[in-house]
Amino acid sequence: MRKIHALLAGATALFLSPAALAADHDPAVLQAKALTDDLAYEIVEGLTTEIGPRQAGTEAEARARDWAIAKLTALGFSNVRNEPYMMPTWIRGAETASVVSPFPQKLAVTALGNSGSTGDKGLTAEVAYFPTLRDLFAAPDGSLKGKIAFVSHAMEPTQDGSSYGAFGPARFVGPNIAAKKGAAAIVIRSAGTDRHRNPHTGNTNFEKGVTPIPAGALSIPDAENLQRMLARGKPVMLNLVLTPQNIGQQESGNVIAELPGSDPSLGMIVIACHLDSWDLGTGAIDDGAGCAIITAAAKQIMAAAQPKRTIRLLWAGAEEVGLWGGNAYGEARKGDKHALAMESDFGADRVWRVEFKLPEAAKPLADRITHALQPLGIGRGPRPASGGADVQAIIRNNNLAVIDLQQDGTRYFDLHHTPDDTLDKIDPVQLQQNVAAWTTVLSIVANDDSDLTMPAEE
Amino acid sequence: MRKIHALLAGATALFLSPAALAADHDPAVLQAKALTDDLAYEIVEGLTTEIGPRQAGTEAEARARDWAIAKLTALGFSNVRNEPYMMPTWIRGAETASVVSPFPQKLAVTALGNSGSTGDKGLTAEVAYFPTLRDLFAAPDGSLKGKIAFVSHAMEPTQDGSSYGAFGPARFVGPNIAAKKGAAAIVIRSAGTDRHRNPHTGNTNFEKGVTPIPAGALSIPDAENLQRMLARGKPVMLNLVLTPQNIGQQESGNVIAELPGSDPSLGMIVIACHLDSWDLGTGAIDDGAGCAIITAAAKQIMAAAQPKRTIRLLWAGAEEVGLWGGNAYGEARKGDKHALAMESDFGADRVWRVEFKLPEAAKPLADRITHALQPLGIGRGPRPASGGADVQAIIRNNNLAVIDLQQDGTRYFDLHHTPDDTLDKIDPVQLQQNVAAWTTVLSIVANDDSDLTMPAEE
Repeated sequence: MRKIHALLAGATALFLSPAALAADHDPAVLQAKALTDDLAYEIVEGLTTEIGPRQAGTEAEARARDWAIAKLTALGFSNVRNEPYMMPTWIRGAETASVVSPFPQKLAVTALGNSGSTGDKGLTAEVAYFPTLRDLFAAPDGSLKGKIAFVSHAMEPTQDGSSYGAFGPARFVGPNIAAKKGAAAIVIRSAGTDRHRNPHTGNTNFEKGVTPIPAGALSIPDAENLQRMLARGKPVMLNLVLTPQNIGQQESGNVIAELPGSDPSLGMIVIACHLDSWDLGTGAIDDGAGCAIITAAAKQIMAAAQPKRTIRLLWAGAEEVGLWGGNAYGEARKGDKHALAMESDFGADRVWRVEFKLPEAAKPLADRITHALQPLGIGRGPRPASGGADVQAIIRNNNLAVIDLQQDGTRYFDLHHTPDDTLDKIDPVQLQQNVAAWTTVLSIVANDDSDLTMPAEE
Repeated sequence: MRKIHALLAGATALFLSPAALAADHDPAVLQAKALTDDLAYEIVEGLTTEIGPRQAGTEAEARARDWAIAKLTALGFSNVRNEPYMMPTWIRGAETASVVSPFPQKLAVTALGNSGSTGDKGLTAEVAYFPTLRDLFAAPDGSLKGKIAFVSHAMEPTQDGSSYGAFGPARFVGPNIAAKKGAAAIVIRSAGTDRHRNPHTGNTNFEKGVTPIPAGALSIPDAENLQRMLARGKPVMLNLVLTPQNIGQQESGNVIAELPGSDPSLGMIVIACHLDSWDLGTGAIDDGAGCAIITAAAKQIMAAAQPKRTIRLLWAGAEEVGLWGGNAYGEARKGDKHALAMESDFGADRVWRVEFKLPEAAKPLADRITHALQPLGIGRGPRPASGGADVQAIIRNNNLAVIDLQQDGTRYFDLHHTPDDTLDKIDPVQLQQNVAAWTTVLSIVANDDSDLTMPAEE
């Protein structure tokens, strides 16, 4: 009897519900709807206007979590909650840089996350110039004693954002290297591609045992000006004032919401963005847009019909300052049955390619998704998908399948981590294309019952 | 005997020297040379790198005068000197704006020249919103008591810069109107056309008897954000800190240099730019480029052969803060025989049209110039020339002829009076086109002996 019932249920599922589901979740129909959907813009407009900057560990991030919970609840998602954790918190202080001689003028500077402090009076020292990070590496130990290292570079825009990997290390590790070589402080040319007087902040990290030195980023026009001064051959004396503070362990949290699927045995799809932002801008492209895109896409799925797989939204906390939210999620939710991870965290410009990390047996699924994305101008990329920062821990812990919808990054590093990360930088039409791409993928994968279990890694 | 000598001299002049001169000053040849001349870029690179910001009345402007005198002397100009005058000087202090409620976040603000001070503690008040300056005008007297007026507008780029005339008054007169209506302070949407977090400063003026109120400009993304907050219908409380000071009478000065002509009786051509700049940027497009363009063009003339008319370079002081330099020149040099005035003060983008204010008899001269400029893509404009700000006094006092080489202003108000006015904004190829246009005009008019005396004005 139970067997017959199950068979009947199966038959019903096969001949009735799935047909209804398939019609409701027709990817082409949902894609077309998403292309005229204003929800993503409404979300990022709301978050940037009503909250604005929301640095991890601060009361602004807490306000943003409240805002997110209210918004996700109002949209009809289930199990909307905050999962808190504690994290060490660094906050910005005063920040000025002035050439003292031979050509006195101010330079636009901002402190890098985890920078040491110069103290209120600042420090004045000679600039030691390194055209590239490699040149700083090559400087003899102790040769920087009492000096302000200045590391420049030639980062230019790339569609896939790869120039950040090539030139970002000036920020990621430059300060640690300079500190180890005895520098009093360091300024770098911002890891960015614009020409505005808005320096790019971002975290840097010092090894255990290395005392953090004051570490700042000059805006690109200022870095170029300093290079021109240095090219004249006279010693350049720089006064630097950076007074950030470490304010100890503070509360942050992940906001989580769900669209429950009809078949929990298929495993859930976790789709992520991060809610925190750097303090200088209003976090529109980094990463208000990402939260807006994944949420608007999930809402399209919700509006169509219940999907088979559960879709879980992770609006992660504290990404910018060390992936605290993603790591907390990866630890806390290890036990949940996940099938797939995806993230949107590269601005709001159009998706230009899709990449997959799926088990071999799911090749037809990848082909189907690729085909369904073609009307949006999205081609298949050559590499395996790797996922965004906030899903790294759960992917690693649970050996998850991944799909990446790669956004065009040509403009991204004009704005990344600067005061210029504001709503006006978002093109509503490209934002809708993102929502359409995400809706397409979710409509297919959330209603597909392929086994997405990855083979054990070697 | 004297008559014969004069006739002979005339003959010589007619058949020998002028021929030589004409060849040396062939406009087409000089135009071609100017198109590959790097001197203008070298000047603006030097001024922005070695001096940078040079606000009128400050020691930075004094350093800039020394720099200018050294540069003009080194280039071989004659009678290079500083003509000093005194002027009242206002300097910037701290400047912050923060929405206190309902959506706490910082807004990027800068004080307008002549702004009053909020005091160190700042002031917090409700924002009274006026979509346009006309709406502020219409507010009943006293209705603004204790409030911070916020005037927005919709300035967009125009090639001829005319949108500054349409929307600039929010800055020019908005603060005075708000003060008269009892406002505690005013913030305006910057008079600019960019989307960066760099507010546009610039002078404002209060009528005699009106006490200056604190007056700031918000960056355009911040003004838009504030508008979105206001659109939600709740009272918006803003904290504003602006602590500028008036530091009394300070010395400023005009730097003057000459290329003496062979026939002083023809009257000199005064070509102007201004040396002072606002303090936020490095004064590359406003107006380092102008000084670079006129100087490089005059140097081309110098290098060719002595012109008939004297060319006088006026690198005026204190333009930004009330035309003190131009007015001092107009008064002090009234007695000098001037024939024509020209100015370059609209950035470094290409000249797109030429306009004239010449006596009727000089029509062939205008036609010749128009024809010679056509290879540079410059057409003749529909209006009479009016001259730049620094030559207004001498034009008015001496009833001078004027030629305007109008630059493309499409990008100008993206940068004008912002921190973003830096060297990288200058396109060297367009800068050379400017020098070629100026060289062309000077090569013709400095070697022409038309009577340029304007008819007495009615």
